[in-house]
Order: sequence, then C-alpha cells, then structure tokens
Amino acid sequence: MKKLAVVAFGGNALLRANEKGTIDEQEANAYAACTNLISLIDQNYNLVVTHGNGPQVGNILLANTAGHKLYGLPDMPLDISVAYSQGFIAYVIEQQLRNVLMAKDMDRDIISIITQVLVNKDDPAFQNPTKPIGPFYTADEAAAISNETKAVFKEDARGRGWRKVVASPTPLVIFNRQTIEKIAREGHIVIAVGGGGIPCFYIEQNKLQGIDAVIDKDLASSLLASQIRADKFFILTDVPKVCINFNTPQEKALDKLTIADAKRYLEEGQFGEGSMAPKIKAAINFVERSGKDAIITESTQLGIEGAGTRITII
Amino acid sequence: MKKLAVVAFGGNALLRANEKGTIDEQEANAYAACTNLISLIDQNYNLVVTHGNGPQVGNILLANTAGHKLYGLPDMPLDISVAYSQGFIAYVIEQQLRNVLMAKDMDRDIISIITQVLVNKDDPAFQNPTKPIGPFYTADEAAAISNETKAVFKEDARGRGWRKVVASPTPLVIFNRQTIEKIAREGHIVIAVGGGGIPCFYIEQNKLQGIDAVIDKDLASSLLASQIRADKFFILTDVPKVCINFNTPQEKALDKLTIADAKRYLEEGQFGEGSMAPKIKAAINFVERSGKDAIITESTQLGIEGAGTRITII
Repeated sequence: MKKLAVVAFGGNALLRANEKGTIDEQEANAYAACTNLISLIDQNYNLVVTHGNGPQVGNILLANTAGHKLYGLPDMPLDISVAYSQGFIAYVIEQQLRNVLMAKDMDRDIISIITQVLVNKDDPAFQNPTKPIGPFYTADEAAAISNETKAVFKEDARGRGWRKVVASPTPLVIFNRQTIEKIAREGHIVIAVGGGGIPCFYIEQNKLQGIDAVIDKDLASSLLASQIRADKFFILTDVPKVCINFNTPQEKALDKLTIADAKRYLEEGQFGEGSMAPKIKAAINFVERSGKDAIITESTQLGIEGAGTRITII
Repeated sequence: MKKLAVVAFGGNALLRANEKGTIDEQEANAYAACTNLISLIDQNYNLVVTHGNGPQVGNILLANTAGHKLYGLPDMPLDISVAYSQGFIAYVIEQQLRNVLMAKDMDRDIISIITQVLVNKDDPAFQNPTKPIGPFYTADEAAAISNETKAVFKEDARGRGWRKVVASPTPLVIFNRQTIEKIAREGHIVIAVGGGGIPCFYIEQNKLQGIDAVIDKDLASSLLASQIRADKFFILTDVPKVCINFNTPQEKALDKLTIADAKRYLEEGQFGEGSMAPKIKAAINFVERSGKDAIITESTQLGIEGAGTRITII
C-alpha cells in the first residue's frame, strides 16, 4: 500500500517578495515547485497539496478596495476573498503540475477542492485580532472604515500606515476530509485547504456562516494531515533546515528536532512569529496527534534522503 | 441504483439584474435556489450542480481594472478571473446547500471542484470574438488597451461605450469528469464546471495554458452531463417553460420539444441569442449524445411532475 503525504506550500512559493505577481511569474514559480513534488511520487507517496495565500489575498483585497472606490462595487468579506484565492491558486498549481506530469510522461489526475474549515465563534482569537491583512490606510481612513464596519485597525510597526487586523482562530474541522483522503488514496493528487481554508462557523444550530478571519495555513494543513492519517507532513519554507540562534554566529541547522526540544525553543523565542514559529507549532500538532514525523524544508529538498529538519516524537 | 442529474444554475440565480450583488443578497438567492434542489434528492437523484458566472465575473474584472489603475496591481487574464469566480460561487452555493440540507435533517457531503475545460486553439471562435465582458471604456481607452494587449474591442449596440469581446470556443474535454462522476454516484453532491469551466488549450504538446475566452456554461454543462452519463439534464432559467412567439399575442409555452422542432425553431430565430438559444443548443447536444431528456425550467419548478419544457429525441 502506498504512503500518504501532505505537502504545504507557502503562498510565496508562487509569488515571491521581489516580484510584482504577474501570472507569468506565478506560473513559472508553480512549475518549479511542482517539479520537486514529483520525487515524492517516485518514492511511492500519494499526495495532498495545501498552500498559503498571503500575497495573493493581499492583492485580491486591494483590488476589491479599488473596485469599491472607483466603481461602487459591493465590499467582499474576507471569507469570499479566501474563496477567490483558493480558485486562483489551486488552478495555477493544478495546471502547472499537469504540465510537469506530462513532461515526465506520468499519468495522475489532479483534483482541486474548495475547502471550508470550521472555527469556533467563541475562540479567544476573536477577542484579540492580530493578523494584519489588506492595504495600508491613513489614520483618518482607518477610523472612518472602522466606524462604518466595526473592523479593528492597528498601526503598522514599521510606520507604513494603519492596517486592518483580523482574528486567526484555531481550525477545528476540515470539511470534505473523508473525500480528500479517499481521492488521494485512490492515487489522484488532491489540492485543498488553500489559504488555511475558508473560515466558517455555526451562527446558529444547523446554520453555517463565513467569518472575517484568516486561519493559519500550516495549522489547517497539520489538522488535515492528522485527520486523513498521513504518513508524513512536509511544511515547505525558504530555508533548507530549521535553525536555532538564527542569524547569529552560533546559528545551527537542525537535522532532527524532538517535540520536547521544539516546545522549549518556542518558549525561548528561537523561531520568528509569523514565519518559523507557526510552522514549528503545526509540526508539533501533527507529530503529537499522529506519532508520525513532520519535515520542514525548502521545496528543492523534497524527496532527498536526510534533507530538511525532521520533527519527531522522541 | 440511483439516477444521476446535472443541474445548471444561471449566474443570475445568485446575482439578479436588479441587485447590487452584495454577499447577503447572493447568499439569500443561493439558499432559495438550493431549497428547490432538494426535491431531486427526494426523487432518488444523485446530483452534480454547475453554474454560470456572468454577473460575478463582470465584477471581478471591474475590481481588477480598478486595482490596476489605483494600485498598479498586475492585470489578471480571463482564465484567472474565471478561477476566482469558481472559488467564490461554489463556496456560496456549497455553504447554503449545506444549510438547506441541515435544516431538512438530510446528510450529504458536498464537494466543490475547480474545473478546467479544454478548447482548441484553432476553434474558429478565436477568429471572431463575440462575447462582451468586463467594463465599458471610451473609444480612446479601448484603442490604447487594444494597442498594448492586442485585445479586441467592439462598440456597445446600446451606446454605453466600448467593451472587450472574447471568443466563446466549443468545450471539448471536461477535466476531472471521471472523478466528478465517481463522487456523485457515491452519493455526494458535486459542484463543478463553474462559469463554463476555466478555458485552457495545448500551447504545445504536453503543455497546457489558460486562454482569454469564455466557454458557454450551458454547453460545458451539457458536455459534462453526457460524458458522465447523466440520466437527466436540467437547465435553469427565469421562465417556467420555453416559449415560441415569445412576447407576442401568439406566445405559446411548450411542454415538450423534439430536437427536430428545436432545430427548426432555432433556425427561425425563435430563441434569443445570449439567452434562450444557447440553452436550447445545449439541450439538443445532451439529448443527441445521450438519448435522455433535458428539461429547461425555472428553479422553483424542479422536481414537479410535468413542469418545464422537456426536450426529447422524438
């Protein structure tokens, strides 16, 4: 029987910090990232691919803001913007992965699934929104929008203006997880849980509603990986291994990291909030729930024996 | 064994002509449309739901144009805008259909699939783009964009300005059709082929590429319905039955229409281009390929015995 792997791409796997984000750029980046995936198929893995959406959803929010200002288009809440980004990014990855597979004469179907993820409206994250999203505003603009919509704004630490902050609640249930697992175990590649999933909650019994929040995509991917009993969970980033004492003379790249050490390093503040820390937390969650290993590495290292940092029970 | 039905919603099932298109409006419309779907489940049908995207993709194109003008965001080609709209509309339908099912205490899973559809780059439609999309421009603006992008613009017949026109090529292959059929026959409701599907073609052997085109959603839905061997194909519109001599004293609503009569009426110009004519053509295609019946009606008539116009072989 084949093994099952969940591979989490960052949103910047398609749109890099130094790029405008044209479609040509994003397609070329997706092609490169997908080329590396193939080695896992060669190693007898079935695959579920998840992905971030940070840079893309930022552009979607900007376009919506501009459409509202220039043409009076209705505002789009954040759950809808995440849905846009799922359609967009899954399509680009699916098409480029098809191209990679055809170039290698490999025959797999690829199924991209729009994914909702349940959160709890009483999640404490809603009392303390922390995740900045969308365009920067002046203090006056932010105050006006806040008055109108009750949205919370915070001033940017680097002085670029005011920005809406939203909650990042804990993912509880991945919709369609049974079908995702079934299709993947049948040998198809599944793309799902884009941008951490479209956040929704029960506004009353038997009534779902989207909510203005962003779910951390590594945490959502980790939950999916354990719920579908994945044998391995790969979290892709832009460094080959996790480091402690990062960017100091004592920097040390780790081949292996037990969850006990990982928790200790997290407490010491070894890992950047908003960059490596959420990946470490997602890896710990998967390892604790499943007993299997998680790997944090960059996409070029996929499938190379001993590459990346292996997070393990002991 | 259960029967399989494909039901094609219009884009205006969610966003009506007299509405702004707020999310609250679209959710309420989706809920109403989904309430009518339930009767088909009661009649022992498995379901695949397809949908249009006309009004929504118009707003997406406007927002992209505004984002480009105000913030210098990169232009998004039409295939990407269709992908946005698939994520958006499938999410709204899926969530409201879940709410309808929960309210009725019915337990079905719903899987929304991002769908690419193959077209031929030599399709004659590319020599004669006819489908107007996106915002209106002045003659000067249209000329400037056309110079830069090679896009074709035509002047609006009602004097509202110049508008980009794109090709509407024939759909040839529905990607993921086997998985769509399999999941639907397992009893899940599948949402797919939104907006006629994301148009793509082989730019070279083994290399797929998106293309600036819009596939007619009724034709794409018809192709899917015959390829997955659906037992019935419902095309939803805003009248209960197909009429001949529409809006004249001789207007006659049809209970049944053979494909021979349908072709004759099409030639006579009985059906509006851009409204009823493409639905009749899609119905003819399905009936000819499958030998089964197609039904054209409005969503409130779904599941009512004898409702709508039945298009049949003889």
